[in-house]
This record gives sequence, C-alpha cells and structure tokens, in this order.
Amino acid sequence: MKHGARNNITAKVKSVKKGDVMSLVKFDSISAQEMASVLTSESVEEMNLKAGDQVRLVIKAIHVLPVKE
Amino acid sequence: MKHGARNNITAKVKSVKKGDVMSLVKFDSISAQEMASVLTSESVEEMNLKAGDQVRLVIKAIHVLPVKE
Amino acid sequence: MKHGARNNITAKVKSVKKGDVMSLVKFDSISAQEMASVLTSESVEEMNLKAGDQVRLVIKAIHVLPVKE
Amino acid sequence: MKHGARNNITAKVKSVKKGDVMSLVKFDSISAQEMASVLTSESVEEMNLKAGDQVRLVIKAIHVLPVKE
Amino acid sequence: MKHGARNNITAKVKSVKKGDVMSLVKFDSISAQEMASVLTSESVEEMNLKAGDQVRLVIKAIHVLPVKE
Amino acid sequence: MKHGARNNITAKVKSVKKGDVMSLVKFDSISAQEMASVLTSESVEEMNLKAGDQVRLVIKAIHVLPVKE
Repeated sequence: MKHGARNNITAKVKSVKKGDVMSLVKFDSISAQEMASVLTSESVEEMNLKAGDQVRLVIKAIHVLPVKE
Repeated sequence: MKHGARNNITAKVKSVKKGDVMSLVKFDSISAQEMASVLTSESVEEMNLKAGDQVRLVIKAIHVLPVKE
Repeated sequence: MKHGARNNITAKVKSVKKGDVMSLVKFDSISAQEMASVLTSESVEEMNLKAGDQVRLVIKAIHVLPVKE
Repeated sequence: MKHGARNNITAKVKSVKKGDVMSLVKFDSISAQEMASVLTSESVEEMNLKAGDQVRLVIKAIHVLPVKE
Repeated sequence: MKHGARNNITAKVKSVKKGDVMSLVKFDSISAQEMASVLTSESVEEMNLKAGDQVRLVIKAIHVLPVKE
Repeated sequence: MKHGARNNITAKVKSVKKGDVMSLVKFDSISAQEMASVLTSESVEEMNLKAGDQVRLVIKAIHVLPVKE
C-alpha cells in the first residue's frame, strides 16, 4: 500500500480510552526514520528554519491516523 | 508554554525545500515519549485496537507544526 | 455562496449519533462530480500517481464539513 | 489494511498538476457507500441536522489522502 | 446557509500571493464575536484551562476556509 | 517561542464544557492583527478573491490550538 502522506511512525498501542463518540488512543515504542512538515515559506523565513535547528513538532491527536496491517 | 495538543516530538531540521508559497521541511533525530490519536469509537471497534497492537501512525505533513524555542 | 474548498459532495443524512461534546453523522446517496487532493509533489512521485490510476481517497470524519442551504 | 478513518472513496485519477512543493490531483468516477462527519453536538443542534436532510459535504483538498494498493 | 463549524470570522482581503498550486491570502479588519476550540479533555486538564484565562489561539493557514457571499 | 502557523489570535476563555474524551472551549475578547489562509490557486480564481473583498473565515473548532504562556 502506498499513500500520499509524508509521515509514517511505527508505534505500539499503550491504552485505549473509549468515549461515547470519540476515543483517545495512546502509543509508545515510537520510531520514525524521518518526519516532514509543510508550512508557508513565510513561516520558514520568520522562524529562520535551517538544517541543524532543534525544534519540537506539535501535532493535534485528531490528525494522527492509526493504520494496522 | 502549554498548548492543547497531545503530540510533542523532538527533532532536528535536516533540509528545507522552499517553494513559492509553501515549503517542505524534513527532520531527523526524532524522539517522542508517547503519542496520541483521537478517532471515532466506531473506528476503534472496527480496527479492534487494543493495548499491545503494532500500528503505523500516518500523518500528512501539513498537520505537523514546528515550534522553535 | 462561494468557498475556498475543492470538494463538494451532495449527500443525505442517514443517522445522527449525538455524544456529550462531539457527534457522528452518517450520510448516503452520495454524489460528487469531481474530487481533488493536495499533497506534496514528493508523494505524487513516490506513489507514481498518473491519470487513469485507481485509488482510494481516505478522509477522517473530522475534516468533513456539512453545509445546509 | 485497516485504518482509523471513516471515509473511503473509490476514484480514478483524472489529472495531476505538479507544483514546486505541492501538487493538485483531480479524480472522477467517484463512488462511496457511506460518508461520515464528526462535528460538535452544538453544531448539530444549530443546524438541526436529522435523518433525511439534504446537505453538501465540503472538504478542503488538503484533507484528502490518496491510497493506492 | 448553515454549516457545521463553530468559528465564523468577518474579514477583508488585504493581499493575495498566487503560487503555482497553492496561494496565500491575507486578511485584516478582523472581527469575531466568539471563538471555539475542541481539544482532548486531558489537554484541558493539563493546561488547567478555565474561564478568564488569557490564551493565544494558533491556527495553521491551511485550516482557514474563506467564504464569499 | 516561534511557531510555523500564520494565525495568532488573542482571546479569553469564556467557558469550558468537558466531555468524556473531548472538550469544547469558548473564547471572547478576540483580537487578531491579521489572518491568513492557504488554499489552491484554483479556488482563488474561482472565487475571484482580491484585495478589498469582504469574506467570512470558517474554521472547524478542532483546528484551533489554544496556547497559554
């Protein structure tokens, strides 16, 4: 299977909290070879992002899609 | 700073590809203690997600927000 | 009304499951003349996407905005 | 493969417009058995959404993930 | 027109920067009576969010949908 | 702190409605100097968006990230 998303993280389910409509799933044993972000070139300039910079990647849980093979 | 997102990944910028409006930034040296996903409880049931399951977390690059302190 | 989104699907509400904060709405009788996806050019190359290819379009329910006129 | 997204649309690639960083892909021959939206219960009440209602589902192209098997 | 999104901001277009595939549009004269965020209850607890708190609302430009009547 | 998002809105928490998994937070006293949207150049053309146009910016609550300093 090939998909049009740049980020593929391998992880193990740690816990599942099931709500009435939405559920929150936690993962650990996380590994990723590379990650990618798309942002405006304006933001890249304002942040002065360049190779070697240490950053934090912030992602809302709603944007994380678990896939099981 | 505290923010309302469940995922915080530490990473190092590897490359920046600047386009006319949007840019693609790649990261390596990725580390995260835990990750989280919010999905419908219906999806959790259909996938039969439970502690110990091995999964892939797929995230479109557009949903990754770099933060520099 | 004109809006800045490429995808407009006509559908009929089949069921509404109301939760405490979030609700899940299902639709059928779906019709769309065309759909569109924006992804990185890198993903297009890796997937080798070209006219005629059969694909599945995966969309998290949270990204679907119902509009009623 | 099982994934945590409620919407699976079968489609055929019609055109690919490749930009410097991002690309726009169009699809036709669209078919979906069912679609789903998650929104606040407050929005459901204000829209008075109920079975049988005719709606439009608006989705930004950036939220559509093509998958090729 | 009624739609299933909690945030409606009135604004005036200030500039349009057109790229090959994506464009960046800037707005000013911004007014909104109320705004809303949906996040995990866990995040609300960790941030200790309560009435009266001063916050910043951060939104990626890709998630802003302009509508013209 | 510098982050890769174009929109920063100052606001005050008005109410918090805590659900089992997700919560809905409302804000008032909203102020923003400028806002930005990224959309396809095709949408810009179809909407004929140009400086001076009055628009509404529609944003799903799930895409709003509160940050507290």
